[in-house]
Amino acid sequence: MTNPVKQIGIIGLGLIGSSIAHGVRRWRPEMRVVGYDRDSAVRQQAAALGFCHSVADTPAALGQGTDLLMLAVPVGSMGAALAEVAAHLPAGAIVSDVGSVKQAVIEALMPLLPAGVHLVPGHPVAGTEQSGPEAGFAELFQDRWCILTPVPGCPDWANEVVSDLWQSLGSQVTTMDAPHHDLVLAITSHIPHLIAFTIVGTATGLAESTQREVIQFSAGGFRDFTRIAAGDPIMWRDIFLNNRDAVLEMLGRLTEDLTAMQRAIRFGDGLQMAEVFTRARAIRRTLVQANQHVPPQKPKAAST
Amino acid sequence: MTNPVKQIGIIGLGLIGSSIAHGVRRWRPEMRVVGYDRDSAVRQQAAALGFCHSVADTPAALGQGTDLLMLAVPVGSMGAALAEVAAHLPAGAIVSDVGSVKQAVIEALMPLLPAGVHLVPGHPVAGTEQSGPEAGFAELFQDRWCILTPVPGCPDWANEVVSDLWQSLGSQVTTMDAPHHDLVLAITSHIPHLIAFTIVGTATGLAESTQREVIQFSAGGFRDFTRIAAGDPIMWRDIFLNNRDAVLEMLGRLTEDLTAMQRAIRFGDGLQMAEVFTRARAIRRTLVQANQHVPPQKPKAAST
Repeated sequence: MTNPVKQIGIIGLGLIGSSIAHGVRRWRPEMRVVGYDRDSAVRQQAAALGFCHSVADTPAALGQGTDLLMLAVPVGSMGAALAEVAAHLPAGAIVSDVGSVKQAVIEALMPLLPAGVHLVPGHPVAGTEQSGPEAGFAELFQDRWCILTPVPGCPDWANEVVSDLWQSLGSQVTTMDAPHHDLVLAITSHIPHLIAFTIVGTATGLAESTQREVIQFSAGGFRDFTRIAAGDPIMWRDIFLNNRDAVLEMLGRLTEDLTAMQRAIRFGDGLQMAEVFTRARAIRRTLVQANQHVPPQKPKAAST
Repeated sequence: MTNPVKQIGIIGLGLIGSSIAHGVRRWRPEMRVVGYDRDSAVRQQAAALGFCHSVADTPAALGQGTDLLMLAVPVGSMGAALAEVAAHLPAGAIVSDVGSVKQAVIEALMPLLPAGVHLVPGHPVAGTEQSGPEAGFAELFQDRWCILTPVPGCPDWANEVVSDLWQSLGSQVTTMDAPHHDLVLAITSHIPHLIAFTIVGTATGLAESTQREVIQFSAGGFRDFTRIAAGDPIMWRDIFLNNRDAVLEMLGRLTEDLTAMQRAIRFGDGLQMAEVFTRARAIRRTLVQANQHVPPQKPKAAST
């Protein structure tokens, strides 16, 4: 396959957008990287950090010559972001995104696509607890999965261009239909985050002296929840608003299981507990074997 | 204060017990370290690893000359462990423990103390996802808290001996009353573990093909829950059985908060979500400032 992309345009220069820019600069040096963020402070920061060849001042300027547009904004802003730039894209351009919810994003983007512009929805399953343009690094996507959820009518070559890009950044690419993606991500990502946000919130509802102790003794497990709960609040709000049905379905299952554990604790059913705990430990071992247990970290030395 | 301890006897040679042995060998070389585990395979492993001066074959042999007995067994086994060795301890000996629950352990141990033997209940807030004698390392307790919950009638010098030991291993020592300890640990440690065990269990209840995908895409948050859920099942069962009231109280609060979030998702209340998420993120920042955010890791080189 000949890759036709000469210029990648990235809207949204936070952790994910800036990491894509770093990665393309390093591993796809033939591509020109143009960035845009609707926050002018972020644009200035990005320009100073220099991970794009140029930072556009307007969505229109970003659209000029962009044959691959990457939307890296919260899922609730995908439609608005594309609407501003769509008319300026050249014919034959590809629009892709990095949203953690796929059905709602596809529904928001499809009606906005100009004729002859193709949509390839995607989701790199990677992140750190940091956000913002200074948090990005080229290696973020290495050895991580990127899930594409192709839409009917999109030509194969367009799907392959996006797949090829993610492989250049070190990801393994797989495809899935959008509703299934949203269900799997509800349990692997959205519910864990919801729980983490909630439990940290519960702790803030305790007496002030106890709150201080919660921080002090967080090494017992709470610490890990706070790390998960450090994600960008708007990004996460949008995910829950846009993946409502799958999240409510999985939350229902979890609540049933939690109620069963509560009952086991109340009535001292040690057998049931030990069984559930042993099964959970076995899952951890499977995951370590699948080599998906080590979180990515920004290298100490700056990277471009 | 002159520390009178010539010999520390450790019952239970898992992660915590073996790490205490490693630490005492390195930082309190004047103490003789004797270990015992009721599992003969663990005793053999410990003897081969060599982190004790000697591994006793029987509880009676461990009691001989032990002026500081450290109980490092699951909280439900503390009483049985002390019962086997109590009669063999010299007069004036100190009994301490590392249990994550303090009231129930104190109630189990107090009636078993021979006259003239003193109890200093303790809880080092430290751990890794590993267990067993080969998992221990001297640095496990460095920069971590150790909470002592002194009992009435125990002489100050005995409390100081134990406090001094933990400081030698690099811990900061604080004291608390036992019921308050159990409440604080319920929210900072026991509930996070319960949730992690449960959510991993919920995932195992999904269709088999989905289960595989849960492992595959765990980098989205689930991964962190599996790490928390990798703890020893019997240790955790005992914690929930022995800290029932505090765990049920905190679980009740969490369930209320989770129900409120569920309602916010159902009715699309983005404002409430963003507020909770923003507060959670602020807590994470406080914790990073308190330098309690980095988990300990076993150094690559073996340590004694």
